[in-house]
Formats: sequence, structure tokens, C-alpha cells
Amino acid sequence: MDLSLNDASPADLDVPSRQDLAGLVVELGVEQPLQLDCGARLGPFKMAYRTYGQLNADRSNAILVCHALTGDQHPADPPHTDRAGWWERMVGSGQVLDTDRYFVICANVLGGCMGSEGPKEINPETGVPWGLDFPVITIADMVRAQTLLLDHLGIEKLFCVIGGSMGAMQALQFAVSYPERTFASVPIAGAARHSAQNIGFHEVGRQAIMADPDWCDGAYLSYGTKPRRGLAVARMAAHITYLSEEALHRKFGRRLQDRKSVTYGFDADFQVESYLRHQGSAFVDRFDANSYLYITRAMDYFDLAAEHGGLLARAFKDTPVRYCVISFTSDWLFPTPESRQIVHGLNAAAADVSFCEIETDKGHDAFLLDEPEFFAVLNGFLEGCASLKGLKV
Amino acid sequence: MDLSLNDASPADLDVPSRQDLAGLVVELGVEQPLQLDCGARLGPFKMAYRTYGQLNADRSNAILVCHALTGDQHPADPPHTDRAGWWERMVGSGQVLDTDRYFVICANVLGGCMGSEGPKEINPETGVPWGLDFPVITIADMVRAQTLLLDHLGIEKLFCVIGGSMGAMQALQFAVSYPERTFASVPIAGAARHSAQNIGFHEVGRQAIMADPDWCDGAYLSYGTKPRRGLAVARMAAHITYLSEEALHRKFGRRLQDRKSVTYGFDADFQVESYLRHQGSAFVDRFDANSYLYITRAMDYFDLAAEHGGLLARAFKDTPVRYCVISFTSDWLFPTPESRQIVHGLNAAAADVSFCEIETDKGHDAFLLDEPEFFAVLNGFLEGCASLKGLKV
Repeated sequence: MDLSLNDASPADLDVPSRQDLAGLVVELGVEQPLQLDCGARLGPFKMAYRTYGQLNADRSNAILVCHALTGDQHPADPPHTDRAGWWERMVGSGQVLDTDRYFVICANVLGGCMGSEGPKEINPETGVPWGLDFPVITIADMVRAQTLLLDHLGIEKLFCVIGGSMGAMQALQFAVSYPERTFASVPIAGAARHSAQNIGFHEVGRQAIMADPDWCDGAYLSYGTKPRRGLAVARMAAHITYLSEEALHRKFGRRLQDRKSVTYGFDADFQVESYLRHQGSAFVDRFDANSYLYITRAMDYFDLAAEHGGLLARAFKDTPVRYCVISFTSDWLFPTPESRQIVHGLNAAAADVSFCEIETDKGHDAFLLDEPEFFAVLNGFLEGCASLKGLKV
Repeated sequence: MDLSLNDASPADLDVPSRQDLAGLVVELGVEQPLQLDCGARLGPFKMAYRTYGQLNADRSNAILVCHALTGDQHPADPPHTDRAGWWERMVGSGQVLDTDRYFVICANVLGGCMGSEGPKEINPETGVPWGLDFPVITIADMVRAQTLLLDHLGIEKLFCVIGGSMGAMQALQFAVSYPERTFASVPIAGAARHSAQNIGFHEVGRQAIMADPDWCDGAYLSYGTKPRRGLAVARMAAHITYLSEEALHRKFGRRLQDRKSVTYGFDADFQVESYLRHQGSAFVDRFDANSYLYITRAMDYFDLAAEHGGLLARAFKDTPVRYCVISFTSDWLFPTPESRQIVHGLNAAAADVSFCEIETDKGHDAFLLDEPEFFAVLNGFLEGCASLKGLKV
């Protein structure tokens, strides 16, 4: 696979000059600031993004990949690392999102910490990091920002918008807010609104961060510190929800960590403890605590039906978009009934929708893993859409 | 219902003098210290307990009630409070654990913070609170301490040992370690070993506590402080696991807390956030953070099969005890398959076992709630046992 950050950028695109770990970074909302749901206006603001493959002549082969809570703009080939991208098996030459055929775009979400405008970036008005002065954003705001990026790239209409978890929320919101701007939408392991239980888990994470004195009321970057312990606890709690009980049992069971018997103490006697501690501390090195607050909040606020008088079907009224909704049997964070609600709403609007529940014991994280049936379903849907659309590559 | 702390204590029992919020407190292990699984010996040590009803002439009507992680020795009529006891609907005159008929005993577990010996009590050797010098205890240790209390009360054999959640672990361990000392055992919403997922959730709680600088490496009582924020986060995370998604949805859904629209901020916009914050802060006022570490650890270590060469059936070999195993459909902390494993182990040992899964959407906490089918099953089992045993009251 090509290791350059961008396989190719069409020559007529005004690609910005700065190219670093973030991939490509573009300044958007320069002439017209972005109107946010909270009432604030943001602009100019940065969007860090990545593209794979070639945009075809009629600009009809673009797929927008939307990342999850802690994802980034590098689903494949992240720069300067041996780590695989978070969708390395999905995006690439000959893969389901075939970069020989499609022009794949992925942007770090607004509010994120991988180069797009978010609480860790410098607030141009004050010259210090935004911190809690950054406006609270919503999934709809993230999607608005993505449309500005598409404008910048000269893409009027996507072939498909796709994502898992929070990416599914964006895939839904994009298709609902801009039905004329995508041919298809694939929300995977998602929901039309964030459940009470999930808001609860997010609130636990936020309280863990805000309880850490090193959070400094959100201004930790100005004090040269970060709420490491709080953010690690937040990640540990969240990580459990990404797996299934079966997956945890198979992976760790009650096996001990580098010892023959329990120590009768509070060290990580069990492998599962050691694993979670590692997940927590590794996360702190790559993620910004305030971004975690902002992005979880955006997910909490997500409620497609509420935006449409409480009736989900209204959100999909007269939609021309073809939907493929996918869930996983052992996902208890975004369980199948949540996906079924999306499908019911689409059916009630007489929309074109395929639905598939994939049998797996890997929990919510299954959307990131090598699940052959999942890949097959997705491949079939995309092939069908390409054929319908007469997509030429 | 009688509001005195003890309905009646048989006149010939040597009831200790101190009687306060803890109920009755007895000093045990005076002549012979308690041998703990970790190798340490503890004694003398305090046990705070409570009794309800009258011990009959042949001392055959005693029921030992075992409390859960954050429970106490007051299942009914807690002193000096308007709050109901944690099993107020179960224990009392005319109720399932009928105090007109049975002599009900409940003790605060070893390692607890309601008057029994635990990390917040004074270490007699140093004159300051035990803190982390308190030995790490196990479920088997808790049960050993309870048998000393029974010795003290002059009760050779229980009619029944019963408990939910961690109480179920004790009910199992008691019947396995001392099969000659109980006629029946009722483990409710329990497991024969703590799962990887549950160890994971416990570790999140412990890390939240230990991340709080006010924890002071466990010596917070000596500094006149306590890890309020860390313990509150631990409780919030745990509380979610006690409920079902359905219960949270029914109770709170996405309803807002005293506001008409979201605030685009990090206040408790949603009722579920406000509820969890309240659960966290109220818990801090009644529970000791180090006790939380010790008791969760005891649960993590619980693995009945491991004590018997990895074969659960061996734990039950030749047992004369009659078991009634109960689970709840929506309990995902101790789901029905965990109870089924207990039943399989008992069946493999040709033991006498009844099993019932109660249909409810209230999650793990159902064992504390008013569930008529649950009460009916339990009542039927106890009636059957009383009849078999020819119990006279």
C-alpha cells in the first residue's frame, strides 16, 4: 500500500501547504464562519484530513469515512508509525473501500485533537489554547464542517458516507441534513439517538477527567500538565463497553498476569486489569482530555428524531439516499434494537434500506475488526450501489 | 415493625454491651485469631451484626442474611434514619423471611465500614486506622468470620444462608466450606466466580479512587480527608452496572433535568447525569473508600471451582445442603448463565437444587426490589425446607 499521506490529489485541487502528522490541514470558514448549533460562529477553523485513491473525472466516486469517538483521519497507513490504521483492513487497494476504485476521504472531526479545530488548538482571539472556551459542538456541526471540506475538494455529491459508532451518527446526520449530497449512507453499530445508559457511561468518563486536579478547570495546557489519571480512568471504563463479556472472557478469563497466584493486594493480579491499565495509560499519550469531553457531549446530544418533532420517519421523509444499516449481535453499547429503530424509521418513510445483523461475539469493537460476513455485506451493498449509479472508474 | 435494634436476644446469649449505629458489636477471635487466606492472622476483631425475631428452643430457625458490596447489617429497620433497610420488604413480620418464625441474623462483612473490622477501624498495634495495613480478605474469610459469630450466638447449624450479588457468593461459600452448618443455601443474582468483565469494572472503580490525590496512598483518615471525587466516580460507574438499559431508559430516557433545552455545556443537562452524580456524592457520605477497595478485591478473588481443582462439581461433592439458585433476566452484571453454571455444578454433584430465572427488566438491582415472582419462588422454597426439616416455631 502506498505510504504517502495522499495517494493522489487531483491537480486542480488547491491543496494546502502544511502537511504533517495530521495529514493535510485546510483552513475553512474563512469567508463565512460556520454557524454552530449552540449559536456560536466558528471561523476560520482548521480541518485535518486525509485522502486515498483518485477522484474520477466526474467526481462521482468519493466516499467519506467518518471516525468514531477516539478515531482519527487515518483509517489506513497512519504516518510515522508501525501501527495499523483503525480501518486498515477496510480501506486500501482491493479492499472493500477499494482505493483503486474510490476516492476515500477521512477528516478529523471538529472538536477533535488530531489537527482539526478543537479545544487543544490555539484560540486566535486569545493566543492560548481554546480549552473550555471552545464552543460545544454537535454531530450536526461536525457534519457541517465536513461539507465545507467537500466544497473545498470540489465534491458536490458523495458516492457514500460511512462510519461506525459515532461515525454512524455522522453517516446518518449527513444523509439527513444533506440528502442531495450523498448517494448512499452506511451507519454501522450506531443509533438514531444516544441512550440513557450511554449518556451515563459518558458522564462517568467526564466526571473522572474533571475530578482530576490536573484538569485545572480545562486550562491544563496553559499549566503544562494534563489530567492523566482522570483520562486513563475514563478510557478504562469506556473500553469495557467496547468489548463483549464473551470477548473479555475468551481474551483474559481469570488468568493472572505474570504470576502463579494472587498477591492479596491491589496490583494488577489479573490480565484483564493489566490490559485495562495499559489501555488507559496509552490513551493518555494520544488523546486530549478536553476533546474527550467535547466529543462525548456531541454524542450525548445526538437525537435525530428530536430534531424532527420526535418522529424519526420525518427525518427520512422523501430521502433519495440508499441506506445500509449494520449491527453486531454482541454489541451492548449500540445493540441491534438501536439499529432496528433506524430501519423502522426508514421503512416508515418508504426509504431504500438494507439491514444486516452480523453474528459475532466481539462486541461493539467488531466494526473495527476482521469480520468476513460484515465485509461481504458491505461489499455487496457498495457493488449494488455502484451498479445502480453506473459508477465508472 | 419493632424499631428496637434487636427484636429479642435469647437471654442466655452473652450480648456485648456496646450498641450503637452498628447494632450489636462483638469482639471475636480473642482466644484464637482468625486465619485468613492471605496468610495473616486477625484477632481480636470486631463484628457488627443485627438480629431480628427469636431463636427457637432447639436453635434451628436461624437464617443468615449476607449483604452485597455496599450493604450493611440492617436489611430492615436501620437505626436513626427514615430510610428503609436494603431488604425491608423481605425481612419482617409476615414477610418472606418472616421474623415471627425465623431468627434472622445479618453481619457487616469483614473488611466493611459499618462497624466490623475493616480498613477504617483502628489497628490496635499502631493506634491509627488500618488503611492499607489491613490484610486483603476473601469471601471465604468473610464466611469464616460469620461462623465465629454463629459460635458466639450458640448456633451450630443454620436453617438457611441467603444473599444476593456478593451475598450470593457468601451463601455459596458458606454452604461449600461448612456444609454441615446449614440446611439450605440461596444464592441470588450471583456467580461461582467473578467474571473478567466484572473484575474490569471493579478495577475501574479502584483506579478512580487511587487516582484521587486525597486518597493519600490509603492513609486519608490520618490526614482528615477522604477521596470524595474518586469514590463518587467509582460509584457512578458501578451504579450503571446495577441497572438494565431498559430500566435506565424507562426511568430517565433522554429527559432533561429542570430545563427545556440542552445548555451546550458540561452541566448535568440530562436526568440520568443528575441521578448518577447524586448517587456518587451520596455514596461518599456513607461508605469508606478503602473498604470499597478491599471488598471489590474479595469479589474479584472469588472462584469456587479454582479452590477445587478447577471443577465446580467437586466443590459440591456429597453436599447435604438444599440449594435454591435465582437469577434475573435483565441482570447483565451477574447474568443467568453464571447462575446456570452453579446449577450445572450442583447437578453434576447430584445435589438438591432448585433454579429459577425471574423475568424482570430491572437489572441486577432486581434482587433488592419488590419482585412478586421472586418473593413467591423464595417463599415456596423456604416453606418446602421448613416442612422437610419439620421446623417448629
